[in-house]
Amino acid sequence: MCELLGMSANVPTDIRFSFAGLARRGGGAGPHRDGFGIAFYDGRAARFFHDPEPAAHSEIARFLGAHPIKSLTVIAHIRQANSGKVSLANTHPFSRELFGRVWTYAHNGQLRGVKKLPLEFYAPVGTTDSEHAFCWMLDQLRKKFDALPPPARLDREVHRLSAQLAPMGVFNMLLSDGRTLYAYCGKKLSCLTRRAPFGKATLIDADRSVNFAEETGPDDCVTVVATGPLTSDESWTVLEPGTLLALREGRIAHSIESKPQDAAKGVLKC
Amino acid sequence: MCELLGMSANVPTDIRFSFAGLARRGGGAGPHRDGFGIAFYDGRAARFFHDPEPAAHSEIARFLGAHPIKSLTVIAHIRQANSGKVSLANTHPFSRELFGRVWTYAHNGQLRGVKKLPLEFYAPVGTTDSEHAFCWMLDQLRKKFDALPPPARLDREVHRLSAQLAPMGVFNMLLSDGRTLYAYCGKKLSCLTRRAPFGKATLIDADRSVNFAEETGPDDCVTVVATGPLTSDESWTVLEPGTLLALREGRIAHSIESKPQDAAKGVLKC
Repeated sequence: MCELLGMSANVPTDIRFSFAGLARRGGGAGPHRDGFGIAFYDGRAARFFHDPEPAAHSEIARFLGAHPIKSLTVIAHIRQANSGKVSLANTHPFSRELFGRVWTYAHNGQLRGVKKLPLEFYAPVGTTDSEHAFCWMLDQLRKKFDALPPPARLDREVHRLSAQLAPMGVFNMLLSDGRTLYAYCGKKLSCLTRRAPFGKATLIDADRSVNFAEETGPDDCVTVVATGPLTSDESWTVLEPGTLLALREGRIAHSIESKPQDAAKGVLKC
Repeated sequence: MCELLGMSANVPTDIRFSFAGLARRGGGAGPHRDGFGIAFYDGRAARFFHDPEPAAHSEIARFLGAHPIKSLTVIAHIRQANSGKVSLANTHPFSRELFGRVWTYAHNGQLRGVKKLPLEFYAPVGTTDSEHAFCWMLDQLRKKFDALPPPARLDREVHRLSAQLAPMGVFNMLLSDGRTLYAYCGKKLSCLTRRAPFGKATLIDADRSVNFAEETGPDDCVTVVATGPLTSDESWTVLEPGTLLALREGRIAHSIESKPQDAAKGVLKC
């Protein structure tokens, strides 16, 4: 299984502590030897680092560990290939432009039959089912809206599209347009909000801890989403399958859960 | 004026020597203090490094100087802002997906009134005239072709579109779809093909030389395109305004010059 990491913050924030825990799973503590990628938003644009090499041995990952790139929104992914060969074209996160913004997406899971969904505007560059699903989602948003809709409206649409994809297999997903970070839990996703009073945190996968009280300001607010908890001494929330979180400025602005009738209609199966 | 650097090669090639000469112009030897970016192709996909910091002082540029990323096609750009503020969204090269491939583009010059050209499918993320022109070019290619056309046909169309943009100001441009590297000389662009017998090359802007005979195989062929010659002891060709080079596998596969009647019709003014 791949590993996801997303961050939303209200002040430009250094992701290195959490990424260190994730990167160790990339061929070190975990079996994810098939590349990694990370996107740092800066306004409507994003800066990307991709490497088809295992994150635990990657020079790029080492560089990112040594040099903070502070950002309000980050999406990272380490890969264990299950669909599509190991190549740069198949390395998450994927990105496309829509409504004059860079959209970034990473997925954990498999989606059986997703490549039968027709595409109109966007085409995959690689061969993964993940990228096909991303292209389909953006196609649907492009057909529905003429321009970027108000946040609450986009939140509902992203949940509706995610709930359509989830029954095809496993769909744990991070998506951002630089304004909102979306996190959809198809099966396994956890989140944690760090705010005052800040305390100490210790990584599960690496011998490393940090005292956030020394690193942060009193008004800082950061929410981290990951496949599983990254630290052993903080209170992570395990998300319910079918839940979409819409994170803005470090806070959970909107949480949409699937209704039981969605599952009964076969819209959702997690 | 910004500085462009492009490379096409028939074997995965290390661009660090040429990039070192360019990076020195990014706030060191030159006035280009407004960021840099570089794209390394790997098949249909590309890996990007962008930094709004001056290349001469950038940690990312230093990392790229220390770690070779070998590639068949590279596009690099260092910026002196003349349209659009200094920001990540305005940092070349720009990229978009078309026909299931990543297209990458960098521009040197200004294009007066280009933002009046209507856009349909692609929208700029930043505020530069350069990115608007790129979106317009891809829009036109998308309207004209249903899928990636044969190379010679695409070569002619890229020349036609470039010759439409050039009269709006200065249009020195690099563009790639991962198969061909296009270099259009609106006003100032030089190129150099390195092949056996290889010799020594010395950078103009940095105290550095290399003996390519020790670094290359007998069948290697690499063509480098840059705003101006980067080395003092090699025979660079200064391109004629109005010329498009189509580089494939390190060679000039196609060179298209504008005909005098194009200029007479006002299609071209360089």
